Amino acid sequence: MIIVTRRGVTDAELDHIRERVEALGLRTHLSRGEHRTIIGCLGDEARLQSVPLHSIPGVEAVHAVLKPYKLASREFAAEDTRVPLGSVELGGPEIVVVAGPCSVEGADMMEETARAVQAVGARGLRGGAFKPRTSPYSFMGMGESGLQILADVRASTGLPVVTEVMDTRQVELVASYADVLQIGARNMQNFALLTEVGRLRRPVLLKRGMSATVKDLLLAAEYVMAQGNPNVILCERGIRTFETATRNTFDLAAIPVLKAETHLPVVADPSHAGGRRSLVAPLSYAAVAAGADGLLIEVHPDPETATSDGDQSLDFSEFADLMDGLRAFADAAGRTVAGATAAV
Amino acid sequence: MIIVTRRGVTDAELDHIRERVEALGLRTHLSRGEHRTIIGCLGDEARLQSVPLHSIPGVEAVHAVLKPYKLASREFAAEDTRVPLGSVELGGPEIVVVAGPCSVEGADMMEETARAVQAVGARGLRGGAFKPRTSPYSFMGMGESGLQILADVRASTGLPVVTEVMDTRQVELVASYADVLQIGARNMQNFALLTEVGRLRRPVLLKRGMSATVKDLLLAAEYVMAQGNPNVILCERGIRTFETATRNTFDLAAIPVLKAETHLPVVADPSHAGGRRSLVAPLSYAAVAAGADGLLIEVHPDPETATSDGDQSLDFSEFADLMDGLRAFADAAGRTVAGATAAV
Amino acid sequence: MIIVTRRGVTDAELDHIRERVEALGLRTHLSRGEHRTIIGCLGDEARLQSVPLHSIPGVEAVHAVLKPYKLASREFAAEDTRVPLGSVELGGPEIVVVAGPCSVEGADMMEETARAVQAVGARGLRGGAFKPRTSPYSFMGMGESGLQILADVRASTGLPVVTEVMDTRQVELVASYADVLQIGARNMQNFALLTEVGRLRRPVLLKRGMSATVKDLLLAAEYVMAQGNPNVILCERGIRTFETATRNTFDLAAIPVLKAETHLPVVADPSHAGGRRSLVAPLSYAAVAAGADGLLIEVHPDPETATSDGDQSLDFSEFADLMDGLRAFADAAGRTVAGATAAV
Amino acid sequence: MIIVTRRGVTDAELDHIRERVEALGLRTHLSRGEHRTIIGCLGDEARLQSVPLHSIPGVEAVHAVLKPYKLASREFAAEDTRVPLGSVELGGPEIVVVAGPCSVEGADMMEETARAVQAVGARGLRGGAFKPRTSPYSFMGMGESGLQILADVRASTGLPVVTEVMDTRQVELVASYADVLQIGARNMQNFALLTEVGRLRRPVLLKRGMSATVKDLLLAAEYVMAQGNPNVILCERGIRTFETATRNTFDLAAIPVLKAETHLPVVADPSHAGGRRSLVAPLSYAAVAAGADGLLIEVHPDPETATSDGDQSLDFSEFADLMDGLRAFADAAGRTVAGATAAV
Repeated sequence: MIIVTRRGVTDAELDHIRERVEALGLRTHLSRGEHRTIIGCLGDEARLQSVPLHSIPGVEAVHAVLKPYKLASREFAAEDTRVPLGSVELGGPEIVVVAGPCSVEGADMMEETARAVQAVGARGLRGGAFKPRTSPYSFMGMGESGLQILADVRASTGLPVVTEVMDTRQVELVASYADVLQIGARNMQNFALLTEVGRLRRPVLLKRGMSATVKDLLLAAEYVMAQGNPNVILCERGIRTFETATRNTFDLAAIPVLKAETHLPVVADPSHAGGRRSLVAPLSYAAVAAGADGLLIEVHPDPETATSDGDQSLDFSEFADLMDGLRAFADAAGRTVAGATAAV
Repeated sequence: MIIVTRRGVTDAELDHIRERVEALGLRTHLSRGEHRTIIGCLGDEARLQSVPLHSIPGVEAVHAVLKPYKLASREFAAEDTRVPLGSVELGGPEIVVVAGPCSVEGADMMEETARAVQAVGARGLRGGAFKPRTSPYSFMGMGESGLQILADVRASTGLPVVTEVMDTRQVELVASYADVLQIGARNMQNFALLTEVGRLRRPVLLKRGMSATVKDLLLAAEYVMAQGNPNVILCERGIRTFETATRNTFDLAAIPVLKAETHLPVVADPSHAGGRRSLVAPLSYAAVAAGADGLLIEVHPDPETATSDGDQSLDFSEFADLMDGLRAFADAAGRTVAGATAAV
Repeated sequence: MIIVTRRGVTDAELDHIRERVEALGLRTHLSRGEHRTIIGCLGDEARLQSVPLHSIPGVEAVHAVLKPYKLASREFAAEDTRVPLGSVELGGPEIVVVAGPCSVEGADMMEETARAVQAVGARGLRGGAFKPRTSPYSFMGMGESGLQILADVRASTGLPVVTEVMDTRQVELVASYADVLQIGARNMQNFALLTEVGRLRRPVLLKRGMSATVKDLLLAAEYVMAQGNPNVILCERGIRTFETATRNTFDLAAIPVLKAETHLPVVADPSHAGGRRSLVAPLSYAAVAAGADGLLIEVHPDPETATSDGDQSLDFSEFADLMDGLRAFADAAGRTVAGATAAV
Repeated sequence: MIIVTRRGVTDAELDHIRERVEALGLRTHLSRGEHRTIIGCLGDEARLQSVPLHSIPGVEAVHAVLKPYKLASREFAAEDTRVPLGSVELGGPEIVVVAGPCSVEGADMMEETARAVQAVGARGLRGGAFKPRTSPYSFMGMGESGLQILADVRASTGLPVVTEVMDTRQVELVASYADVLQIGARNMQNFALLTEVGRLRRPVLLKRGMSATVKDLLLAAEYVMAQGNPNVILCERGIRTFETATRNTFDLAAIPVLKAETHLPVVADPSHAGGRRSLVAPLSYAAVAAGADGLLIEVHPDPETATSDGDQSLDFSEFADLMDGLRAFADAAGRTVAGATAAV
């Protein structure tokens, strides 16, 4: 931590600031410039984080030197973390695609979707049984019977299941069905929920909140990891900005920034980021070109009749085309993607 | 709902769109312009909300005609809703000030703070027992023992208690101690939590999320109200923008916009909005000038030693000055504020 | 400037960084912490501003210590700057209100508007002769004949004139008619234009750009002042955010932040910030409560027929009501506003 | 234009609204729903654009049906516009890369840079002679002597020159040296400047403003085109959001959105978008994957000593690597990029 003091700070103020910092076990180091005096604080910076340094008379600005996250940081682990998803791994050389409808709507449509996406290279099945909806009058999902359908389809196809958990009281229930627990964007800072999924070892797919910085996302991952669960997958899904031409603003640069800052796998959700079917392919290709380890794609047998997010869902043929196109971009990125032989 | 079709839409496409809409029990109405044909959809617009209209061939744009919230809307209730807080009401002629520390840190500091703020006109006591913190390594609050302290201080001072609930599993616990359940900004779209506090009749103070629009905030209120709890207080506390000179960007205009859109009381939290002690007074005065029904103010016996949010907390003397200054602005707004006689 | 080096920085890298900084005439000062080494750079920080410090091997982060603006900063001038507007001053005890239509539409409507707003306390007349319009097909203003009308109305009423200049080639022309040169939000970083108006001594009203931080606004003021023109008035008029309920997001907190950072007068433009007639009064009152030195208000004899911004323009009676309401808030803020006697 | 009227609108109000619209030569069409009455306005929508429809009693909301831009819209031109750049074209099958330093710093460094980038496939040379700088104390560019250097290097290498014009008074001067006139992000809504470059036929590279929507960018292009200049190249270079991990937020999705909305070529500037050298390659690859027609890349012989933007400039070897990597992504996108043989 570096403390910049106000012009004209008194010696008594400087002494008081140093006492406050040293009382926490850190050392201080003074640099007097022409206009400003700077106090470097050496030692365990975390201890200073809750201290209202700005409140101490004479303090003008405070700059952190260390990252506030540890377990999630690249410095903590030199090697990329690989998170298992069924027989494959996220964070390895393969671009892993997880596909499926926004909501589980029934057994038949899930089975049909699973087989269709698996045939062209999807490695996991997504689908919501509990749905976060902006309006209390929208369809909220099938609940536990939706989870049962997901488990049945996994049994018949072998595709591992990614599904959302929204409530601390349902973590155990969802974990008893799902291979990966998804934390939605609106719950990225639901700290009770992060703590709860951190107590399991089940992989967690953590979606970036609409107003979360990259740092906030890494701190949310740190919550899960601090409880002992190292299996966190980060997901860029768009942030909220002034632009209304797309549902969200896909922060593509967050992908290489995250890959540099953390050892955790990073995936993209182009369906939510763009909010329109026609944007799913270009955003997917771009995410892979920028270094993403995987993709979450919304696919529905008949998007026009989907109970949620139909506007951004691909049908089977569009998804097959997407996977076809993806291969060349994965190649260009020195990565692989499943299903290549099927496409030949 | 109004559907604008693409240039060159075919009759078959128009028929198909109308069939889809009419199948839901609405009537349709065609207007053919030179460049575009428009389909007006008359009837229960809510039924169309989950339909992926953009997915239907020929559709270019869709415009909602009705507000997606009902119970929270001004159209639903002609009169302002008044939410009780101890012996006073939020939403009536009095500007109601609730003050206290960010976190409950102990019995003595709470008692001392409560007496100090009550003496100069505060009508409620705030303080967090469960604290949402961006970093898992920060102080998380005292938990139930903090709630007990709040209840004890209420018993000794008569000040009603506003405190945050973060987890569906703690709603009953917190409600057994608190007069008002606060939902924090990060949980504004924690729909499970909104539903749970909606099942009680205890007043709910709902803080606007950092990336929530006014519409999102009203839909979050609708979640609570749809469960049967009409006692919702809305709180503007700043949104996240590119500006870094302040902790958040205080969206002052949201106050008169909300007062026009809804019958619910609206309060402001200038402490979180500005993030700096020196901004609390100007933001408070401005909120009252713009029509706020109340204020949430962070006050601490010694801000320099506060375990959280010390930089934005007022000490007792600063709070007394704030209340003194507030009176003239309340007067100008045709409102009252408590403690006037004490101040003379 | 403080340079934070990467974990594991080598001594050779440290030496190289120090050499680069010292070559510019600054001194350096090393603090070695457990995890990071910090280099304090003492001396003329401005010289470092163009240096790509991040490009030097071993550098992780760079923090500025000094403000990048000087002439505009509060440190530069202890006293508030007062900028003359006809017979009054902006930045003194009086809240100065400037009113008028968005565009000059004709001589009669300007004369009529000037007399109406002057009667209830306006101290200046606004009106655009050159209009910046988002679409090339919108009304662009009357040009020089509009300026002539403004000058004629000033002659007949005594009201000084505030009008926009959009093009370096028109600065002299506009200055030959106007008392205050307005730089619009879209031109806040039109550096050629800022430089040109800086060469005159005519007061400049500088509107904050839609994506400009407070720091950017002060640097834009610095451009004008660096040319020798000290008469700069800053104007908060709303920034662009994700919120669509209002035309812009009125950043009220920028007012007290600016008043602390600079000695220049600060005014607010509630008409553009809110974009709706009903928001003009609450935003005006709030701006005064937060410390604004003046207001710019759009007023039109018949807003329904205005050629631009009719939706946010007040008619004469609404403006009179606004001025009436304003007095109590000005009083509460310890300020005055003209026209009080007329209102009795 | 569709006008939604308020609940309880009177027949007199409806009549008045219709009269206002019909007086402009449009026809109106009424749809009465249960809760709202809607007025469709058929005819030349542009005539309604300046009318303050919200000001008319009874109006609740107004929705535009037609795009506000015409010449720039995809509907106007079925074929992609190709803009010449020396011997190649922007908007054709080749991904066109323009490279060079942020600022022209001297003849030798420009010559050296031009030869280095040309050798590995760059088709144009960029470099600023007039520099927009946030601070008035930063290096402003070499001015006309910089333009002369650019022209000399073009003469010796054959590389066409892209350089910025910031002032209406300099348009002729810059056009006498440059092949493409660049309008910077801060001048995207400098309407006088847009009009001036529209009067020439010289290609214009129009950078998106930091707070400009896709619609605003297209309206800025419309300004240029409405003057008769059809040679506009659009450039995505990042927008301003709350995220501070990157200099700007690269709005990648704007590329496919623009390619769908307009026939004009679209390029990306990953140097400014990311603001860091390490992000240039991933953002470039992603832009191409998403459909960009070209790239602007900052390259400097020795970034560490650059007078501006050194942190985001590549050195020659990094640029050669970028071009090498780009080929595979261009292939995947079904596009070509120059210099392929050199890479074999």
